[in-house]
Amino acid sequence: MSSHIVVFLPDGACLEVESGRTILEAANAAGVAIDSSCGGQRACGQCKVITSLGRPAGGPGDLLSREEVEQGIVLACQATVEEDLVVEVPLESQRGELRILMGRTEVTGAPGEADTPLGARLPVKMVSPEREREASDDERLLGPLKEATGDGFSELAIDLPALRALPEVARAGGWEVDALVGDFDGRGRVFGVEPARGRETYGLAVDVGTTTVVVHLIDLATQGFVEACATLNDQIAYGEDVISRIIHAQEHETGLAELQQAVRAAINRCVREIVEEHGVAREEIVGAACVGNTVMTHLLLGIDPAAIRRQPYVPALRRAPTLRAEEVGLEVHPRAPVYLAPCVSSYVGGDITAGVLATALGESPRLTLFIDMGTNGEMVMGNRDWLMCCSCSAGPAFEGSGVEYGMYATVGAIERLSYDPEGDAVEYMTIGEAKPRGICGSGLVDALAALLRAGVVDRAGRIDLGFPSRRVRVRNERPEFVFVWGEEVGRADDISLGEDGIQNLIRSKSAVYAGAETLLESLGLEAGQVEQILVAGAFGNYLDAESAVMIGLLPDVPLDRIRFVGNTAVSGARLAVLGRGARRRMEELAARMTNFELSVVPGYMDRYVSGLFLPHTDLGRFPSVAGLLEPSA
Amino acid sequence: MSSHIVVFLPDGACLEVESGRTILEAANAAGVAIDSSCGGQRACGQCKVITSLGRPAGGPGDLLSREEVEQGIVLACQATVEEDLVVEVPLESQRGELRILMGRTEVTGAPGEADTPLGARLPVKMVSPEREREASDDERLLGPLKEATGDGFSELAIDLPALRALPEVARAGGWEVDALVGDFDGRGRVFGVEPARGRETYGLAVDVGTTTVVVHLIDLATQGFVEACATLNDQIAYGEDVISRIIHAQEHETGLAELQQAVRAAINRCVREIVEEHGVAREEIVGAACVGNTVMTHLLLGIDPAAIRRQPYVPALRRAPTLRAEEVGLEVHPRAPVYLAPCVSSYVGGDITAGVLATALGESPRLTLFIDMGTNGEMVMGNRDWLMCCSCSAGPAFEGSGVEYGMYATVGAIERLSYDPEGDAVEYMTIGEAKPRGICGSGLVDALAALLRAGVVDRAGRIDLGFPSRRVRVRNERPEFVFVWGEEVGRADDISLGEDGIQNLIRSKSAVYAGAETLLESLGLEAGQVEQILVAGAFGNYLDAESAVMIGLLPDVPLDRIRFVGNTAVSGARLAVLGRGARRRMEELAARMTNFELSVVPGYMDRYVSGLFLPHTDLGRFPSVAGLLEPSA
Repeated sequence: MSSHIVVFLPDGACLEVESGRTILEAANAAGVAIDSSCGGQRACGQCKVITSLGRPAGGPGDLLSREEVEQGIVLACQATVEEDLVVEVPLESQRGELRILMGRTEVTGAPGEADTPLGARLPVKMVSPEREREASDDERLLGPLKEATGDGFSELAIDLPALRALPEVARAGGWEVDALVGDFDGRGRVFGVEPARGRETYGLAVDVGTTTVVVHLIDLATQGFVEACATLNDQIAYGEDVISRIIHAQEHETGLAELQQAVRAAINRCVREIVEEHGVAREEIVGAACVGNTVMTHLLLGIDPAAIRRQPYVPALRRAPTLRAEEVGLEVHPRAPVYLAPCVSSYVGGDITAGVLATALGESPRLTLFIDMGTNGEMVMGNRDWLMCCSCSAGPAFEGSGVEYGMYATVGAIERLSYDPEGDAVEYMTIGEAKPRGICGSGLVDALAALLRAGVVDRAGRIDLGFPSRRVRVRNERPEFVFVWGEEVGRADDISLGEDGIQNLIRSKSAVYAGAETLLESLGLEAGQVEQILVAGAFGNYLDAESAVMIGLLPDVPLDRIRFVGNTAVSGARLAVLGRGARRRMEELAARMTNFELSVVPGYMDRYVSGLFLPHTDLGRFPSVAGLLEPSA
Repeated sequence: MSSHIVVFLPDGACLEVESGRTILEAANAAGVAIDSSCGGQRACGQCKVITSLGRPAGGPGDLLSREEVEQGIVLACQATVEEDLVVEVPLESQRGELRILMGRTEVTGAPGEADTPLGARLPVKMVSPEREREASDDERLLGPLKEATGDGFSELAIDLPALRALPEVARAGGWEVDALVGDFDGRGRVFGVEPARGRETYGLAVDVGTTTVVVHLIDLATQGFVEACATLNDQIAYGEDVISRIIHAQEHETGLAELQQAVRAAINRCVREIVEEHGVAREEIVGAACVGNTVMTHLLLGIDPAAIRRQPYVPALRRAPTLRAEEVGLEVHPRAPVYLAPCVSSYVGGDITAGVLATALGESPRLTLFIDMGTNGEMVMGNRDWLMCCSCSAGPAFEGSGVEYGMYATVGAIERLSYDPEGDAVEYMTIGEAKPRGICGSGLVDALAALLRAGVVDRAGRIDLGFPSRRVRVRNERPEFVFVWGEEVGRADDISLGEDGIQNLIRSKSAVYAGAETLLESLGLEAGQVEQILVAGAFGNYLDAESAVMIGLLPDVPLDRIRFVGNTAVSGARLAVLGRGARRRMEELAARMTNFELSVVPGYMDRYVSGLFLPHTDLGRFPSVAGLLEPSA
């Protein structure tokens, strides 16, 4: 039976599913929450989704209006997967309680027939010595395993610790055992031998970000999402960006070891939290895929990244061999395989390769601009025929760093916001519908756009102290705008956005916009020719396209071309855990991407400076925004 | 340039040499000591050797008599290697001082063009980032390495510790480095990166015997022998034979770990002794091949051998993957490859596979019986078309254990002995021409044969107390025969052979002979059809064929068919260190050998009992001996 990749937007979650499964089954398995009060009985009509790539099978049924059918809307419980799909889940179909990024979902099954996962528990019936004398125990194990895995591995061998366990486990279990098999770049390794049907097996997908580490636990039996956990990367103690980390590694004798230990500690903290919550044993996690930018990849492996900072900016490695967990220091099965997503260059890393995989950009016929907004802003332009990538230092403002009430996109973060100057009223939504604790990236984009539209801030980002609103005030000698009054939500202080934060946001958005502009020009393209803009990043569960264009973060294209695709790094890591096809594809993609070095293009800096206005020095580039600003200009 | 295998007998040393090298150059490289006072100038005529398989090139010169030329004798300094050769070095051509088994030879070079050795130091010129920007450090290393190793490896990857060292070593050395590359069953692994041309590299060949561990250090640059060391296997503290070791592992909770630690300790003691003597660093040893019987192989790897002792006698493994030294616990470069010779069955191990490789038995057109006399006596019958093998419990008497003045074949051991009853005189030679300390296996065979021939012992092994010699006496109520008077050589006690020792020797020889007889009969063959008998073992530097037949250890065949081939286990291990061709051949040989289980043949026990006489109950089987015994019968 064939299987296909399904990518869900804006979550960015992806998985492989068997032909014939419904999109709803796939969504449940992927941990994507789609509203369906009838439980998939084709009764409620809530599970409306749009497929933006690929065409699902199954009739529309009678729950959709003619307009909806014409718009390409299908019901997730009726539409079945017959080819690779990118499925967009509209906000109104997203299940509320599951829009918590770090939440928990039920594993409701519906696994696809995976190709070789990174690690697996395979039951083996060995031939007993009574039936076949001329063989050793390892041959009794490897023989049937080779048959079971078919062409899956170029070779299959057994690790010494597993070999040591084998004689006793095999005899105690009447020659039935479970073999833990890892995929080490096409070579199979039996890294554990355990009593048959003893335990669950899980995989880890790890997004090793400069600022934030995100870990997903995947149930390998169902391929379903179990739990996610995010935490700050402990390396922040040694500097906020990758450059300051490299300097720390260089200037302190134990710097490299400290940085390696710090990122391990962050990952392992998440792992411990997840496994404790779910009663999972460390040894039940039989594979981990880690994706990170090139510097994070170096530091996780304890490899000196010094050359990345020096002309001509070369990395020590781009593609690491699949390692053992104990070598990397991850607290999972010590001999489990750890796969690292391949990097393209010193500043375009495995997180981008994973993102290109997860968005299916490399297979798309449409000219696409993919932007991953992390502490660095990386982007990839291209389609199924060519891919060009570059990186710019955006800074972590959109991850909430450097902005007073900025925060990472987790429970309590304001992720959506609007301001009505008529009534001086702010409306907002928080992640998890919890009490507001701060503003995450998507909320900050909305906030800045709203203030600009209302005329509270001018195009230089200055707050107009004469603006007729009690929300505009000066605190600690700095002008700011209050979005949430503390007393209204039962907190001691007010949630506001001040001029310092605004300047950081402007620098970040300008770095990204200038990068996109430079890349486009180098390719002889104009923004209008881009057929879709996919924005990834861990700054929320959605991004308002209009706000993003309003502040000049994204080029002024028709808004329906802009789509937020979530944390594609961790989505790609999840795919890598589940199938070798995905791992191989990542390697092909990394090899296909042509690296474009922004820093050597003289015009980049000029463009960056021109972008330090809202939306831009040159309003002609933003005609749709210019129209909105005119009344207040 | 093509290369060929040369095997030297009786040493059993083997190596691959380039076409055109002289046999003397090959012998020097192999550490085989051939007399040559002119130093290979074709002047002294001392280096006479016989090729028993293959034909060397080069004319006979004028230093040999017509008779010698007709007998197939050539001068080692003139004869060149143009095909695979088995070279016999007659006693009179062996260089005296080097007949010390544990001696030291100069490495005089003349390496062959080896195929992929187990470990190697390969110089690499990397392309600098200034010349080529789009590559990571590991790619700069692996690219040229792949070119240099050609088809040598199915894939080539770099270990994490080597990757960590690479950025600094490469830049410090101006992009010239040495890569330590190991062969892991066809996969290349860079396990070290060091400054260019920094150090020597060595390999280890280890014979893991039940009683004795022998370690050879090989210079990988010249492929020459550097040093050997032997020591008792510390496992002896847990029992003398493999069965008692298995029982110890079963009956004590820490038994398996103790046994593993014991054999590691013995090997590492030898390694330390050798490296200290030669100023070699542990990290300079970049590969080790270990050969041992099946139980020793299990215990070295810490794998429970319990099933070997139970019906149906199956091993946990026969062919281990190539491991890391740190996994096995060998004190060489911690990530260096450790190759283990493949075993055939529970009682025919890697030492026998190595022996079959070293003797080229599997390529011989002649019907051959190969007997390896260790603590177990294993034998292989066959030729290039078929191979049959079996094992019998010979016990360690011929290694000197269980015989009061018996000793291992090392300096001071009487290895050759004769007794003249006329003058009541004993003549003997010791290893290293040192003061006699005891009698090793070959000397014990001579001793028992001499006593039988002289009528001192009868066919039941009893000493005739009425024999007219002052050497016959009773000590501690046991009859014995004194070979060396202590006062004559300056030692406190006399060196003698008593009836207990004789009975142990008789049991050992009978086990071996009965095994050979049973194997022959099962094949429908008679002893007279065997074209050559090769005897291996660590019991001396030679074995007197006449004595061996006299006591009924070997079948009564024409004496020129019997040849002593020394420690073929360690010779095979040396070949395995030097070339993958040898390693692959071992695996083919192990697969080709059909195991014959003596214990399930009802006749074996009867034959063993019939053999508990000298030479045998049935004198008709030993016509040549019967003639000699008649006068005293």
